[in-house]
Amino acid sequence: MNVDGKPTRTVWLDGSTVHMINQPLLPHAFEVVQFHDPMHTAASIADMVVRGAGAIGATAGFAMAQAALQAPEDGFHRHIADSANLVRKDRPTAQNLFYAVDRVLDAIEREADGIAAARRAAVATAQDIADDDAACCEAIGRHGALLIGPQQRVSTHCNAGWLAFVDWGSALSPIYRAAREGQDPFVWVDETRPRSQGARLTAWELGQEGVRHAVVADNATGHLMRTGQVDLVIVGSDRIAANGDVANKIGTYSSAVVAAQHDIPFYVAAPTTTIDTACPSGDDIPIETRSEDEVLYTWGWSDEGGFVRVRTAPHGSAGHNPAFDVTPAHLVRGILTEKGLVEATPEGIASVARS
Amino acid sequence: MNVDGKPTRTVWLDGSTVHMINQPLLPHAFEVVQFHDPMHTAASIADMVVRGAGAIGATAGFAMAQAALQAPEDGFHRHIADSANLVRKDRPTAQNLFYAVDRVLDAIEREADGIAAARRAAVATAQDIADDDAACCEAIGRHGALLIGPQQRVSTHCNAGWLAFVDWGSALSPIYRAAREGQDPFVWVDETRPRSQGARLTAWELGQEGVRHAVVADNATGHLMRTGQVDLVIVGSDRIAANGDVANKIGTYSSAVVAAQHDIPFYVAAPTTTIDTACPSGDDIPIETRSEDEVLYTWGWSDEGGFVRVRTAPHGSAGHNPAFDVTPAHLVRGILTEKGLVEATPEGIASVARS
Repeated sequence: MNVDGKPTRTVWLDGSTVHMINQPLLPHAFEVVQFHDPMHTAASIADMVVRGAGAIGATAGFAMAQAALQAPEDGFHRHIADSANLVRKDRPTAQNLFYAVDRVLDAIEREADGIAAARRAAVATAQDIADDDAACCEAIGRHGALLIGPQQRVSTHCNAGWLAFVDWGSALSPIYRAAREGQDPFVWVDETRPRSQGARLTAWELGQEGVRHAVVADNATGHLMRTGQVDLVIVGSDRIAANGDVANKIGTYSSAVVAAQHDIPFYVAAPTTTIDTACPSGDDIPIETRSEDEVLYTWGWSDEGGFVRVRTAPHGSAGHNPAFDVTPAHLVRGILTEKGLVEATPEGIASVARS
Repeated sequence: MNVDGKPTRTVWLDGSTVHMINQPLLPHAFEVVQFHDPMHTAASIADMVVRGAGAIGATAGFAMAQAALQAPEDGFHRHIADSANLVRKDRPTAQNLFYAVDRVLDAIEREADGIAAARRAAVATAQDIADDDAACCEAIGRHGALLIGPQQRVSTHCNAGWLAFVDWGSALSPIYRAAREGQDPFVWVDETRPRSQGARLTAWELGQEGVRHAVVADNATGHLMRTGQVDLVIVGSDRIAANGDVANKIGTYSSAVVAAQHDIPFYVAAPTTTIDTACPSGDDIPIETRSEDEVLYTWGWSDEGGFVRVRTAPHGSAGHNPAFDVTPAHLVRGILTEKGLVEATPEGIASVARS
């Protein structure tokens, strides 16, 4: 997608250097950082310079490609294995990270034509992982754009945009596609407390792409739905259970309940890698509880410049911070994948799930 | 209610001096400010040193009492009329302000025993207004405490506590009563973006009163309801229509819809002065749109000390900031007034509405 009018991905490999957008600085500063060795690339995942399932997977793949390019011929495979262990330790719950590491490792191990060929295979595979992610997201956009009529008003929660993937995004991809096709969509951007990914990242993405939008407090979305100002909702997902239940950023559930109350279509957009067939229902998805400080404080950019955190709650008051919630399948009108729109039912999920 | 263990009201008159809690400093500093003349007392309403229907009404009454105490004998009634006009200009939509000004004016005008008696009548009437507000809120607490079982978990939105009135509050009064009766309630405090009155004021009130509580992002409340962690909801109201529809802080509607989904009782607590029988339904209640900056920024206390605002959204992104929403009567389990709990129906409202 565009940054200052120039097509950009979240992360890419050039020679043996990994380039990525420094996401914690957004939207207040745009900076591309370079990492010259796999150790630093891996650290960028742990430090959350990059976040989002697709973007983390691509970064892990590029880190492994860097490892292959830089490992000495003497003990080549041992060096690669050490790098793989290093990368795997970064975000132990990030499914795409393990997938990418294993896929690059596998390409290296299957290459019988010597170390130079193994290096080329590693780079090609890492590039494939990134390109696959971008292609999946682009396909989600093609399928999803059909759901958005001229000048329709779409509500979204958190950031399931291209910054969370390599390009296009999941929930925002249909919006970008519709915009490029001249449908002129308008987006209600939920601020998405406590970490404000909507206000910070989704609003920035939409602004760079020239899509009309307004940021609202999460509290306002129900009122907008009740007063007929929302035509459809599209959100992303962190995990989709086999029965169609969906885990996503905290607050998604309330949005789905109110949307159902007003018969507003509520769609979940996610690549099929998000489907966890080993997870029978939403009840089996663990909900991470994060630091109470995310609720008790807000991070932002001060008028004097620079990031500052401000405390809103009194000292002595506790906070409680569940990071995700589960939306039951019956509230989901459909799940948008790279293979098309499917019902949020066991049959719908099974029809697109990867084996 | 208690501040540092000492019973305190939001505003009181001592001699001819008005004392009030400087609310914009809460919860980060507790300060009582004094105003020695009605002009400055009136300005405190416009400057939002004091906020909330009951507290504004009491302050307006005290400003009029000050005017009566300080107006010269020569042109006494003209001075009083000028002060009344001054106070009326502060918050033109604050119904309680007009009621208080008129009630003190009326007491002065009906007093036939000379200026000294008129002054005494003004002070006594202003004191009555404040005491009536406190008594109404205390009565709401007595009725409402019956709804709260031992160690039940109550969700509330915004601040409908004693800081918005003279004492006790509306939504929080039943909780304070239940706590003093040993029921040991626990309160989920919605942060209440964009102005964070829950995190700032409700959490502070509860902490000072020793009531167990945790601040949550507004996004978390639906998840807490779905997972069985909320026993009942009590919120305040800015205006109640004749059919039982309720206007309150933005976000109340979503909370009511999700509560209904899980059959969690949703109560609205408000003195009968909040009922507007001239307003047939919620559709007739105008929704104020406030500055987009409230959404695009967050105010809070920096780690270095002092208030700072931080921007979360990118420059160039617009915000939209409806300040209130309407919850239809069918989602309201009951309305708690000083006269008791009534149904949110035309009959229920009519049974307690002031003529």
